[in-house]
Parts: sequence; C-alpha cells; structure tokens
Amino acid sequence: MNYQAINFQQKLHQFSERWSPKIIAGMNDYRLKLVKIQGEFVWHSHPETDEVFIVIDGSMEIEFRDGAINLNSGEMFVVPQGVEHRPVAAAECSILLIEPAGTVNTGDAGGDMTAPADVWI
Amino acid sequence: MNYQAINFQQKLHQFSERWSPKIIAGMNDYRLKLVKIQGEFVWHSHPETDEVFIVIDGSMEIEFRDGAINLNSGEMFVVPQGVEHRPVAAAECSILLIEPAGTVNTGDAGGDMTAPADVWI
Repeated sequence: MNYQAINFQQKLHQFSERWSPKIIAGMNDYRLKLVKIQGEFVWHSHPETDEVFIVIDGSMEIEFRDGAINLNSGEMFVVPQGVEHRPVAAAECSILLIEPAGTVNTGDAGGDMTAPADVWI
Repeated sequence: MNYQAINFQQKLHQFSERWSPKIIAGMNDYRLKLVKIQGEFVWHSHPETDEVFIVIDGSMEIEFRDGAINLNSGEMFVVPQGVEHRPVAAAECSILLIEPAGTVNTGDAGGDMTAPADVWI
C-alpha cells in the first residue's frame, strides 16, 4: 500500500475557487472535503444528514433561523440534520466538511451556488 | 437551540490521560473523539470500519505491517477497514479520531489498553 499523509495546507494550495468543496479523503461512505468561503452562502438544510464544519484557517459564522455561531480556526460545529443554516465569512475562510458521499453543498435549496458533489483533489 | 462552538484546545485541557479517546461531537452514527497519545499502542485493526486520524498537536507515526506514515499537526490519514496498524508517538500528540459510534480503540486486539468507547467530554 502507498502510505501518504494528507496535508491540509498542501491541498488548500491546489485550488482557489470558493463555495466549491473538494474531496480529500473518504471514510466508509463519508467524505472529507475542503472548501474556501467568503461572503454569504444560501440558506439551506440537509434533510438527511448532520454536517461537520471544522475551521482550518480564518473565521466564519453559521447563521441559523434562531441564532448564530462564530467559528475560528481550531473550532468545529455539527449542524444537525434538517436545520436551516447559512455559512457566512467576512474574509476568506478555509473549512473541512465531513458528510456522506453525494451530499450537495446547497442541500434542499439548489440554485446558482450548487457545486458538483464529487470532485476529488 | 443552544449554539456553542467546540474548541479543540479547550476540550484537550479537560483531560490528561493517554490512549483513552473522549467524544466531543456526534455526526449521525459517527463520533469525533480527541485522544492524547505517547509511546506505542497495540497492533490492531478495525474489521468493520475505516478510521480517520487528524493530528491537532504534535506528531505521530502510524505503523503498518508493510510500511509507516508520519503525521504532523495539520495532517491526516484514513486507516482502511481491516488494515493492521499501530499508532506510535515519541512525545505527546493530540489527535482527532472519526469513526462509527461504539468503535473500540484496540479493535480486534483487545487487551490492557482497551478504553471505554463512549466517554463524552
């Protein structure tokens, strides 16, 4: 077998587009994805799954209909299944997402910010 | 809902024992666990699941029967289901593990280093 560490910074240097998650690893039927964000995403939910956000660089906010949370580098949050949320970042922020394979970034909302769900780097 | 970031360093300050994973979050039927390691663990495998290692602080090695991998802070690796491995760290290293709920640290090996699989902090 070929044993190779996955380095977050090396992977982040491989792309610059925002709001377009890139898969860096698989675990069973789950995927670990890096995504760069800046600005406001669309309100959406994932009716069938929880979603893990781990901030690698920068800071972000996850807005909910009844509150919000600030996440800085070294912090994480799990957005529960079915809960509407909107990721927002004033400056560019890099995040590690963990969710089932095939999970679409815009969830039930769709629209222009929908990105392909299965791009590996 | 109560929105509270999970801060890795804050959680790491809550315990000092080694080789005893502490759950900090759940995602569907998976668990995210922090563990501090130093020294050599036991050879084992997890016959039913892949296992994610993300190094938070320090550095470690994962030995395999046919090789090894070094992981530093900001790096990760997914040990495939059924593959024998042994985590080793010369100095204390803090790791985030992601695996299904109920996964036991020593997998199929058992023995003295087996820790409870369901301790939350």
